[in-house]
Amino acid sequence: MSPALRAFFHNDRFARHNGIELLDAGPGWATAQMTVADHHLNAADVVHGGALFTLADLVFAVASNSHGRLALGINVSISYLKAARGPTLTADAKEVSCNSKLGTYTMEVREATGDLVALAQGTVFRKDTPLPA
Amino acid sequence: MSPALRAFFHNDRFARHNGIELLDAGPGWATAQMTVADHHLNAADVVHGGALFTLADLVFAVASNSHGRLALGINVSISYLKAARGPTLTADAKEVSCNSKLGTYTMEVREATGDLVALAQGTVFRKDTPLPA
Amino acid sequence: MSPALRAFFHNDRFARHNGIELLDAGPGWATAQMTVADHHLNAADVVHGGALFTLADLVFAVASNSHGRLALGINVSISYLKAARGPTLTADAKEVSCNSKLGTYTMEVREATGDLVALAQGTVFRKDTPLPA
Amino acid sequence: MSPALRAFFHNDRFARHNGIELLDAGPGWATAQMTVADHHLNAADVVHGGALFTLADLVFAVASNSHGRLALGINVSISYLKAARGPTLTADAKEVSCNSKLGTYTMEVREATGDLVALAQGTVFRKDTPLPA
Repeated sequence: MSPALRAFFHNDRFARHNGIELLDAGPGWATAQMTVADHHLNAADVVHGGALFTLADLVFAVASNSHGRLALGINVSISYLKAARGPTLTADAKEVSCNSKLGTYTMEVREATGDLVALAQGTVFRKDTPLPA
Repeated sequence: MSPALRAFFHNDRFARHNGIELLDAGPGWATAQMTVADHHLNAADVVHGGALFTLADLVFAVASNSHGRLALGINVSISYLKAARGPTLTADAKEVSCNSKLGTYTMEVREATGDLVALAQGTVFRKDTPLPA
Repeated sequence: MSPALRAFFHNDRFARHNGIELLDAGPGWATAQMTVADHHLNAADVVHGGALFTLADLVFAVASNSHGRLALGINVSISYLKAARGPTLTADAKEVSCNSKLGTYTMEVREATGDLVALAQGTVFRKDTPLPA
Repeated sequence: MSPALRAFFHNDRFARHNGIELLDAGPGWATAQMTVADHHLNAADVVHGGALFTLADLVFAVASNSHGRLALGINVSISYLKAARGPTLTADAKEVSCNSKLGTYTMEVREATGDLVALAQGTVFRKDTPLPA
């Protein structure tokens, strides 16, 4: 991962507050993980949809900003496939399409067993400005 | 809001960890708010997409569980309309459709000014079991 | 509806091939209808999801092009709420947000009884070019 | 493809009206193609979003009904990646998840060149009844 990309996302306080760790990234892709703690659970005692989404959203953001231009999320659709319990969840984002204005990505969230728990696709608007230092 | 519904969502630890307060709810609707703090921000210094989603997701969950049967999220699509900065964000969920197996909801997230910052729609699967006590 | 907008969508051959009639439109909104025929049905003898989507997509396109700049669909999420049978279906699009680059819209498809059968939300990219004459 | 599945989708009149041909299918997957004609075009002279969606929707329907139980679409999210012109478009659906009540699928629509023009994901509700004969 480029030092500029790592430095930029080091400033992502919501990801940090929720225990999400960016593992690696390159042009158009990123991977992150989250060790499930009590504060990730919902009222039904499984991992909260918002926690799964946030994990997917981080790799979406990193992958879409990985070319060095600032990218802003336009929309994301997420499907929940099964209840997630941990102890560790991993998310991967992969670039599907990227032109001068827009980029589209798919994100997969998996249990440590490899079971897919959530699948998302999202699109960003790519600004003309570089990533802030 | 019914005491059973309030008690059930009192157990939502991810919402609490992220400072989301359930304000009120009734059959098919719910409203919640989040006072924006530094730990809600992303790398670009605006409210994280995951925080906006989580706020929308909580009212989605409460509204869809408001009839007393356990409802599980199947999918959510969220559109981000403008950067959100706070200081306070409010989310409302409204039931669009509800049958014996499925329910669909729209969720709006607004700034204190009333500006809409995110719009989502989501569907739940309704189980035959009541809300856990 | 402005003559330029009407003339532009008069060229929408897929809508015409599928019997979709644009009823009216203004800045940020549009309404259309479709009289259900045998060729709109799916294998299960109800209106095809693609037909419901296409009806919603037409009003999305008209509403998002109604400001006179060419708008291209980026994404649409549609939820099917109940089986649609006709004899007439109506779709309405409403603008939720519009800035210099992006616009977001909600679309509702209803039976003649007023029952909501599908709900969609979609986003366009707004080009700098005017509608082709 | 099983004779029962082929016979069931032979009754899909909207797909036939729009020139969509089911090529092959098996458990959890399907592939179809559409030869682009003038009546598939929108006002901007490229393939209509509704036509791309309908092509994706057919393979979604076939793949999700391929296990012999009737499956009904709940929601679909589609992202448009580039303008499609033909002369031939192909769609593939792939099962991501399937349990007793719900199934989730991804759908890709490609030009004959292999270029991806649209990407979708959708979920069905699986009824307890078999495919109608």
